[in-house]
Amino acid sequence: MRNWSHAWTGAWTRRALMTALASFFVAAALLPLGAFADPLPSWNDGKAKAAILDFVTRTTTAGGPDFVAVGDRIATFDNDGTLWSERPVYFQGIFVLDRIKAMAKDHPEWKDKQPFKAVLEGDMDAVMASGNKGLGELLAASSTGMSVEDFSAAVTEWTKTARHPRFDRPYTELVFQPMLELLAYLRANGYQTFIVSGGGVEFMRAWAEGVYGIPPQQVVGSSDKTEFKLDGDTPRIFKLPAVEFVDDGPGKPVGINRFIGKRPVFAAGNSDGDLEMLQWTTLNSGPRFGLIVHHTDAVREWAYDRDSHIGRLDKALDEAPKRGWLVVDMKNDWTKIYPFEK
Amino acid sequence: MRNWSHAWTGAWTRRALMTALASFFVAAALLPLGAFADPLPSWNDGKAKAAILDFVTRTTTAGGPDFVAVGDRIATFDNDGTLWSERPVYFQGIFVLDRIKAMAKDHPEWKDKQPFKAVLEGDMDAVMASGNKGLGELLAASSTGMSVEDFSAAVTEWTKTARHPRFDRPYTELVFQPMLELLAYLRANGYQTFIVSGGGVEFMRAWAEGVYGIPPQQVVGSSDKTEFKLDGDTPRIFKLPAVEFVDDGPGKPVGINRFIGKRPVFAAGNSDGDLEMLQWTTLNSGPRFGLIVHHTDAVREWAYDRDSHIGRLDKALDEAPKRGWLVVDMKNDWTKIYPFEK
Repeated sequence: MRNWSHAWTGAWTRRALMTALASFFVAAALLPLGAFADPLPSWNDGKAKAAILDFVTRTTTAGGPDFVAVGDRIATFDNDGTLWSERPVYFQGIFVLDRIKAMAKDHPEWKDKQPFKAVLEGDMDAVMASGNKGLGELLAASSTGMSVEDFSAAVTEWTKTARHPRFDRPYTELVFQPMLELLAYLRANGYQTFIVSGGGVEFMRAWAEGVYGIPPQQVVGSSDKTEFKLDGDTPRIFKLPAVEFVDDGPGKPVGINRFIGKRPVFAAGNSDGDLEMLQWTTLNSGPRFGLIVHHTDAVREWAYDRDSHIGRLDKALDEAPKRGWLVVDMKNDWTKIYPFEK
Repeated sequence: MRNWSHAWTGAWTRRALMTALASFFVAAALLPLGAFADPLPSWNDGKAKAAILDFVTRTTTAGGPDFVAVGDRIATFDNDGTLWSERPVYFQGIFVLDRIKAMAKDHPEWKDKQPFKAVLEGDMDAVMASGNKGLGELLAASSTGMSVEDFSAAVTEWTKTARHPRFDRPYTELVFQPMLELLAYLRANGYQTFIVSGGGVEFMRAWAEGVYGIPPQQVVGSSDKTEFKLDGDTPRIFKLPAVEFVDDGPGKPVGINRFIGKRPVFAAGNSDGDLEMLQWTTLNSGPRFGLIVHHTDAVREWAYDRDSHIGRLDKALDEAPKRGWLVVDMKNDWTKIYPFEK
């Protein structure tokens, strides 16, 4: 009896084990690839990471109270200071100066004409002293009066050749690894990710798809007026020296409404220029997520907020607790800032 | 020997037959659902249908000389006269008049004030005689000074209640069945379908997703300026009585560049207002498709082209043969115009 019993038990146990194993592997095969992997490996375990994981889980759980239909999963991201760095000045500003220098050989008159003279002599104090009028002239000279294709080609060339003064790397490498992971994680969960930035829309479109995986039609930004011209059988669109739209502050919800036509359920920014986008996104019914990237790491990146001339974060920082926005502490919440770090 | 041979042959034949059948069913199971069905059943077999099928096949055949990467499969469609009818006048014009009538109870002064008086009295000659200034006043009164949500709700309500004078059906039923099939066929082949129309962007977005399967972020149109306002804890975007952008004629490539940021490979229109969009799309390297819907069916729809006050098709009709654009003859190329036809 003992042997028989043992044999039966053994056979039954083996069969149950095999069935369980088979079920496990079938279930595992049905799960999305990487379901067991950490989708946010550069985020420290803690409140910030847990809040993001919880929100995405809740909004994608079918039948749950916070489920959001796939078509309504719209996430908007500021660019400067939110997806990549913005020091010593906005990188597009450096592009403008570099381009003025590159164009100077065709403009000998710039040697004696401000603010161009100051740019060519590297006198940044004089450049800044030229004020909005001077900066507008530099922007117009460097970025208008050409076709959108030619402008895009100039930006692409710059991203390949220019190097950041502190890190000696292309500017497009100074993107935040944790935010790249967040973009990918949202997209893997059916979210459409958009850039909504004060930067120039054509400047960003030239590299946003390669760097962030965000295609041109999901980039909203500031723009100059443009004009269509048919030159023989060659159609071109020209950038004109006139501002069309400033996608900053209250312009961000306006841009979101104009380009996307749906209110986001998720928005991320880093400065007071993102305040109205965060309000427009989160002050609505249903699950909503507002995120502020707080620059707190003077060693690995830069530390600044209320008193900064670039990326000032003051009002939005005050409003965050009241609105329930997540303030991400770069120093403590992120194990890694840039992809190139060991 | 004979029996043996017969048995062997029979066994071999059965095995080969079974193997062949199994291969067939496996192959059939691997094909996309509906691969054997006609994707354009409301298009008569002929030159037009063949050209479309050929283009989509060529641009989606991996390794072929005309292959287009999925991300670059951008198709743009005019709306009025291309996806739905535009007679007796643009349907948005009828919405404006209906809305003026609906709002009149709150505007007793309109009884004595032109062009409102003419609308309320149904005097269309007087309405038209009020010219661009008068029509602009009607558009401003009916479609601005309210939040985008309130405007969208008004449009949705109108699509449910208003009925076309000739067909006694909601306007959103006067869409072209063959074009619905074309939109679905392109999307099934990895194309992103956009509306690029002179119509108001907020007017179209209210119903385009339900009627065409085109979500708000893929609708490009004319727009009024808007403004963001935070009223206590309630953010709103208001439509202002000032034109921001006219998405017609040379404005169409400008709008495509601004909103989509990529040149389409496929564009469809029906009037000279689509000429520049067709040029911008097709006068480019690589495979490109330009399509013109020619209104030739006075019985089932309307017949008009060069002399029409609405949807005039003159220059684009002249240019079509030179550019290789497909001119679709509604009367002869389409077995069905509207979905509700038997």
